[in-house]
Amino acid sequence: MEARAQKGEDIEAVMREIGRRAREAAGLLAQAEPGRKTAAIQAGAAALRVECAVILAANARDLAEAGDLSKALIDRLRLDEGRVAAMAKGLDELAARPDPIGTVLAQWTRPNGLAIERVRVPLGVVGIIFESRPNVTADAGAICVKSGNAAILRAGSESFHSSRAIADCLSQGLAAAGLPATAVQLLPTRERAAVGHLLAMPEFVDVIVPRGGRGLIERVQREARMPVIAHLEGVNHTYIHAGAELAMARRVVLNAKMRRPGVCGATETLLMDRAVAPTHLPPILADLAAAGCELRGDEASCALDARVRPASEADWDTEYLDAIIAVRVVDGLDAALAHIARHGSRHSEAIVSQDATATERFLREVDAAIVMVNASTQFADGAEFGMGAEIGISTGRLPPRGPVGADELTSYKYVLRGAGQVRS
Amino acid sequence: MEARAQKGEDIEAVMREIGRRAREAAGLLAQAEPGRKTAAIQAGAAALRVECAVILAANARDLAEAGDLSKALIDRLRLDEGRVAAMAKGLDELAARPDPIGTVLAQWTRPNGLAIERVRVPLGVVGIIFESRPNVTADAGAICVKSGNAAILRAGSESFHSSRAIADCLSQGLAAAGLPATAVQLLPTRERAAVGHLLAMPEFVDVIVPRGGRGLIERVQREARMPVIAHLEGVNHTYIHAGAELAMARRVVLNAKMRRPGVCGATETLLMDRAVAPTHLPPILADLAAAGCELRGDEASCALDARVRPASEADWDTEYLDAIIAVRVVDGLDAALAHIARHGSRHSEAIVSQDATATERFLREVDAAIVMVNASTQFADGAEFGMGAEIGISTGRLPPRGPVGADELTSYKYVLRGAGQVRS
Repeated sequence: MEARAQKGEDIEAVMREIGRRAREAAGLLAQAEPGRKTAAIQAGAAALRVECAVILAANARDLAEAGDLSKALIDRLRLDEGRVAAMAKGLDELAARPDPIGTVLAQWTRPNGLAIERVRVPLGVVGIIFESRPNVTADAGAICVKSGNAAILRAGSESFHSSRAIADCLSQGLAAAGLPATAVQLLPTRERAAVGHLLAMPEFVDVIVPRGGRGLIERVQREARMPVIAHLEGVNHTYIHAGAELAMARRVVLNAKMRRPGVCGATETLLMDRAVAPTHLPPILADLAAAGCELRGDEASCALDARVRPASEADWDTEYLDAIIAVRVVDGLDAALAHIARHGSRHSEAIVSQDATATERFLREVDAAIVMVNASTQFADGAEFGMGAEIGISTGRLPPRGPVGADELTSYKYVLRGAGQVRS
Repeated sequence: MEARAQKGEDIEAVMREIGRRAREAAGLLAQAEPGRKTAAIQAGAAALRVECAVILAANARDLAEAGDLSKALIDRLRLDEGRVAAMAKGLDELAARPDPIGTVLAQWTRPNGLAIERVRVPLGVVGIIFESRPNVTADAGAICVKSGNAAILRAGSESFHSSRAIADCLSQGLAAAGLPATAVQLLPTRERAAVGHLLAMPEFVDVIVPRGGRGLIERVQREARMPVIAHLEGVNHTYIHAGAELAMARRVVLNAKMRRPGVCGATETLLMDRAVAPTHLPPILADLAAAGCELRGDEASCALDARVRPASEADWDTEYLDAIIAVRVVDGLDAALAHIARHGSRHSEAIVSQDATATERFLREVDAAIVMVNASTQFADGAEFGMGAEIGISTGRLPPRGPVGADELTSYKYVLRGAGQVRS
């Protein structure tokens, strides 16, 4: 199918056929017994273990074709036996979680005797476009199965062969459980035109989940003819308020930036109250520098530590995903809130302080999916929330917002049971 | 401002200024005390009562300009003292309901001591485009205020002056309560180009709610650069299953069609099981004909009642909003489900039957915002659900689905409170 899809004139036909199959699979998956979906995900995990060598060979091909990727990107792309085993384990854990579909979210009875329920249902067909590690293929596909949705996955082109091998395992699992193998489909081409067709098929695709940088998100929001659950980058701030305990501030900032600088929950900008900058900023910057972090800051930060290089305007809007931090000294809570409102990406924002008036105002006024006090922004993760595997962190204003797991990839309908009631 | 806006080159500037004001108002409204929002809505209700003569004069101008509208449309457009009083009463009832913002929707604590809350927040700026009665201006504007959102309203052009007078009352109420009068703004022009600009300002508008027919919804879904909560027409079915009790079926169908044929929850198509058509269809059709309903049906229906005229293919997809019903005899539940899947608009669908196996399958398998058994589809209404005033019934697959009231025009954020936790 890949060969066919390379011919421009055929891509639209291939995409429509994928859409048609996904819609058909979604109808079956929506009515599937929970045990069958569990079995499909477990069989997918088993297939990942059995096909480990095939997956690693596909990954080697990706790496060989990758050419001049950065060291960080190569590390994200590379699979080994441990990473394949971790993928399989993740699927087994997801399989063991409660089935979200059919749950009664609310129920009440009206004075006229009509019984009303709000019942959880799948979304239908979910299109997911991602740029990152090949293991997202396993997580995203399996989360869709768990939530009764059919998935159309568009992996990053650099992980094309690895993602293909992983998606094949999920399809094997589905077939083994008597569900349509086409409930998880990976686009069979790397051509960009395929994405355009995917975004233009509202009759086959109910929602699009793009996960990536501003360029991808903006293209999808401009072109998509169906709802978009956007997973934008995390330009996250940790704000050290004047009421912060120094030891806690040091521990939290170091972790928020350096535990894993490449995750979307990593802190990218440190905001520091001017009142405590002389005492708090030098030790925090020393910790970061000692851990290998590059420091870029405003004039006041540069004055406090010679290692800080001057930041440009662009630094305040940059998701580094790397061991680099931007540092700005601000005049109190109002200035910190204004900076975050202007430069934040509505992902995750943290304040460190013992002053409850300040922290409660921060939690209330900051507009982001996740707001936190006295904790590392690296907790921005579905598993850390106790929600299990996730597709990512939704940064839109509408629900689902924050970590998107199986529960969040659902909708609801109202079920009314009467005994012949009519409206007066 | 209307005069300015008539000049094509100025409309974009006018729209951007409206957007900027709405964004500013939304920031203030999101943080407003519940009591202040309550006071604003109550003061708006009081203004409607005081300004009743002004509103009726504006309405008379609309009626004079309306020209050759149908009788049904004139009836929807016309206001009188009773209708204005009902609008004011609706606002007072909305004001008395609990404030949705700040509600903790869920909370839990992680093993590491992190306390997590999901807290209800406003959406921001809501753009609402509607074609129907002028009272929607009052309901939609006040629901936005209640839910902490700023509203930009685009009324049907035939109710332009009435809607203007009503929106002015809401703005008076906001100002009287110390909130920005610009939290509710009505577009100051009837030009279609204004809608195009509204849909192209994602920096100022967070969500668009179009309420109308397929033409409007499709234009908005094609052009909008922000999420859309679509309120499509209701092509609703009532299906009389072979296990239906005749007396109940007669009562339910007559009400579902004829109580108010012009509401979106009205039944448009009657599906009748072939097994009971000879006994059940003639009395049901006789009831409808006696109430003044025009009958259009398939061959089998025509054979059972001489008043039934042959239906065309288009009838199965038509929202009449009038005293007309399409009638089709089907071969059992599977055929009914297939007809609804093909022709329904995912609004409200009903089955009448005493057979629990059939009704539970219908409730589970029909994909619509509202599915019901043994009740009139005219219950598809936020007030009948006990949810208070509503903007309408959302027919999309993503939440909010079904009746959209103040609670449904909200989102949430995650609030995490720690004591210095870092991630390992």
